[in-house]
Amino acid sequence: MSEAFLIAPTWIAPVGPRPDLLRHHAVVVEGARIAAVLPRQQALDAYPGIPEIELEGHLLTPGFINLHTHAAMSLLRGIGDDLPLARWLEERIWPAEARLAGADFVADGALLAATEMLSGGITTFNDMYFFPEATAASARLLGMRVALGLIVIGFPTAYASSAAEYLRKGLDLRDQLGEDPLLSFCLAPHAPYTVEDEHLRRIAILADELDLPVHIHLHETAGEIERSLAQYGMRPLERLDRLGLVTPHLIGVHAVHLNDAEIGLLADRGASIAHCPHSNLKLASGIAPVARMLEAGLNVGIGTDGSASNNRLDLLSEARTAALLAKGSSLRAEVWPAPAVLKAMTLDAARALGLDDRIGSIEAGKEADLVAIDLSAPELSPVYDPISQLIYAAGREHVAEVWIAGSHVVQKRQLGSSFALKAIREVVARTALWQNRAGNA
Amino acid sequence: MSEAFLIAPTWIAPVGPRPDLLRHHAVVVEGARIAAVLPRQQALDAYPGIPEIELEGHLLTPGFINLHTHAAMSLLRGIGDDLPLARWLEERIWPAEARLAGADFVADGALLAATEMLSGGITTFNDMYFFPEATAASARLLGMRVALGLIVIGFPTAYASSAAEYLRKGLDLRDQLGEDPLLSFCLAPHAPYTVEDEHLRRIAILADELDLPVHIHLHETAGEIERSLAQYGMRPLERLDRLGLVTPHLIGVHAVHLNDAEIGLLADRGASIAHCPHSNLKLASGIAPVARMLEAGLNVGIGTDGSASNNRLDLLSEARTAALLAKGSSLRAEVWPAPAVLKAMTLDAARALGLDDRIGSIEAGKEADLVAIDLSAPELSPVYDPISQLIYAAGREHVAEVWIAGSHVVQKRQLGSSFALKAIREVVARTALWQNRAGNA
Repeated sequence: MSEAFLIAPTWIAPVGPRPDLLRHHAVVVEGARIAAVLPRQQALDAYPGIPEIELEGHLLTPGFINLHTHAAMSLLRGIGDDLPLARWLEERIWPAEARLAGADFVADGALLAATEMLSGGITTFNDMYFFPEATAASARLLGMRVALGLIVIGFPTAYASSAAEYLRKGLDLRDQLGEDPLLSFCLAPHAPYTVEDEHLRRIAILADELDLPVHIHLHETAGEIERSLAQYGMRPLERLDRLGLVTPHLIGVHAVHLNDAEIGLLADRGASIAHCPHSNLKLASGIAPVARMLEAGLNVGIGTDGSASNNRLDLLSEARTAALLAKGSSLRAEVWPAPAVLKAMTLDAARALGLDDRIGSIEAGKEADLVAIDLSAPELSPVYDPISQLIYAAGREHVAEVWIAGSHVVQKRQLGSSFALKAIREVVARTALWQNRAGNA
Repeated sequence: MSEAFLIAPTWIAPVGPRPDLLRHHAVVVEGARIAAVLPRQQALDAYPGIPEIELEGHLLTPGFINLHTHAAMSLLRGIGDDLPLARWLEERIWPAEARLAGADFVADGALLAATEMLSGGITTFNDMYFFPEATAASARLLGMRVALGLIVIGFPTAYASSAAEYLRKGLDLRDQLGEDPLLSFCLAPHAPYTVEDEHLRRIAILADELDLPVHIHLHETAGEIERSLAQYGMRPLERLDRLGLVTPHLIGVHAVHLNDAEIGLLADRGASIAHCPHSNLKLASGIAPVARMLEAGLNVGIGTDGSASNNRLDLLSEARTAALLAKGSSLRAEVWPAPAVLKAMTLDAARALGLDDRIGSIEAGKEADLVAIDLSAPELSPVYDPISQLIYAAGREHVAEVWIAGSHVVQKRQLGSSFALKAIREVVARTALWQNRAGNA
């Protein structure tokens, strides 16, 4: 009991359990877990003398889950704006990565990214990048939860020289770090067009044996579908299906170009989509058919993508655009209402990661990943509907308190740890060096 | 000289004059005006002993201009989310307005809105609402510049009972307040579908005589075009043209549904568009063809619309979505690059309002409406391109300093005037009463 405390906000959006909104309730946290969600007075009676954190005017939600990012790329933010995907990759990103990418680049970039994400209420991020051990170390410094992508890509980098080596390094890392309570793992073949059949087939078998999600870019551009038709005589999703990858483990990132049959297949198989609207718009890949996905019952989470294509690791802003774009592109204003969008940012993303038994909602027994958003500012007054206010009006600037596994990692809008703050200042000071090495003025 | 001071940021985006970006320059402000833009040392030599405001790591831009809003509606923010435009208007907005709208509602709502806008770097807003004198008073409290819409609508409200009375009240207000240096005026017929030919024709004549912009909702939904075809046998824009309204004075708001001929007509006549992407998406009106407008040379500014349909009066966020949506919907990533988007938020909007000789760029002789954005935060480091960082990564939370007509109205992210702060606190305290009177829980 010594570690227990009680959080009493004005509103709680538990996500999952009904009703959507609780008033005058409290969350009891014991150690890393939620012990109870009760009417406040009942909680105070049941836990006499428990320390209470009162949050007048705040909405408490589950921690936000960023379902797709490349955290380390924050050091390349803005290096290639206003360019289409192929030129962006070939002229800017890949050459800069070839010059820069090593474990220290990844550690610094991931710490910047994690700082930005955590301050904005993101408690878990699903990452795909080289040197994942460096990303894990930076997230650990801030106490963040990570689903670490064990990347596989069909060309050599400073990290590994062959698909087989990528995979072996990733699995070794999982063996080393598997006991960390804030880490989980995904197999992360980069994309159908960068990984050959042989390796994709092996990944399908491993996903099944090890019960790991498969995090992969999928149907991001029209061009990759055309090239797959030319090379393999089929669209990439059909190829993944023949290789055994279209299962509940699949997290298909982007999915901008899907026909109705493909949406139906993904939904039937229990796969998930990581929808990244800002990145898709910025690189002019198009607009994902989210309204049709939701109608088909396909599980959709939301991702920021990396800073080089977004350029803001802000899940609230991403979710707002996702909601608005689903309405505007389907011409139906009732599509993806605010409570469903909050669920996509939390419980649905947890389900995609295979973590929905541990995080994603505010329920007794789950781990205490929680965000309190201060809705008392002039720009948020009055509050007709707190969940709607969160999705359509609030911003990351209103995120006031964050807990991860019961640890109070953001307090009154400040990162909690002075050790972390010192590390962040040192990284910010080093960014000018990385910028020079990236070869840009 | 006693009132002169010098602002020395790391970067200046003057907008208009070349180059797009100045480094190590300073802006000299004397009274309400910009006296000079010079290399910093040259400025210090030319103005010995001048007080200097050093802004390390900041980008200085012209003040942002919100080209379309209904400020007072901030009190209705969130009252009708996830509904299509017709139900939103008929079931939520109009009944609430009928219960609430009076000068005190407008004063309170406009003060909330102005607080939100000013904190986010908006120095001028183009407003359309009832009781514009109350909006003017609230803006004056914060020292903001307003283009006040002299609203005309074909149904009675608490403000006026006939189109003729609306117009008379508006023109009387202009006679009373015309000397206020922070006020300008637009004729503001609500929409083609709410104002009859007779009054639109009179407005066209007045716009010409008085040299006033005409601020009007235009082709927002497919439905209003169909109804116009049924009622008048022509599309609304053709009707406006026959009534003499398609001139350089026209500010057409929304313009979601325009064919190529209409875009060409508007461009040829030197008219302007107020593009409001969040509102258009949220109400499922559609996506305006901005890429085609820009190609045709049509002048495009950006507006937030009112809080009831957006729900965030944040021009930086609106501009970011505008830029991304123009790329994603045209499938061309190079459309509307960051410097052009900044110009749309400032100089192009000033041109639409007929104010481009006074505001919209950082040039000697113009009034000193300036915004300094702090780009030194971890989430904005490193800075490859400051203008790109502003549009794609920064948020209103990074707006640090704001000047309007040389007056320092936001200092270190705080509104300057304690008198204004007291008034804002009082309004926030009253919002619960307005919420109850709006008839919603």
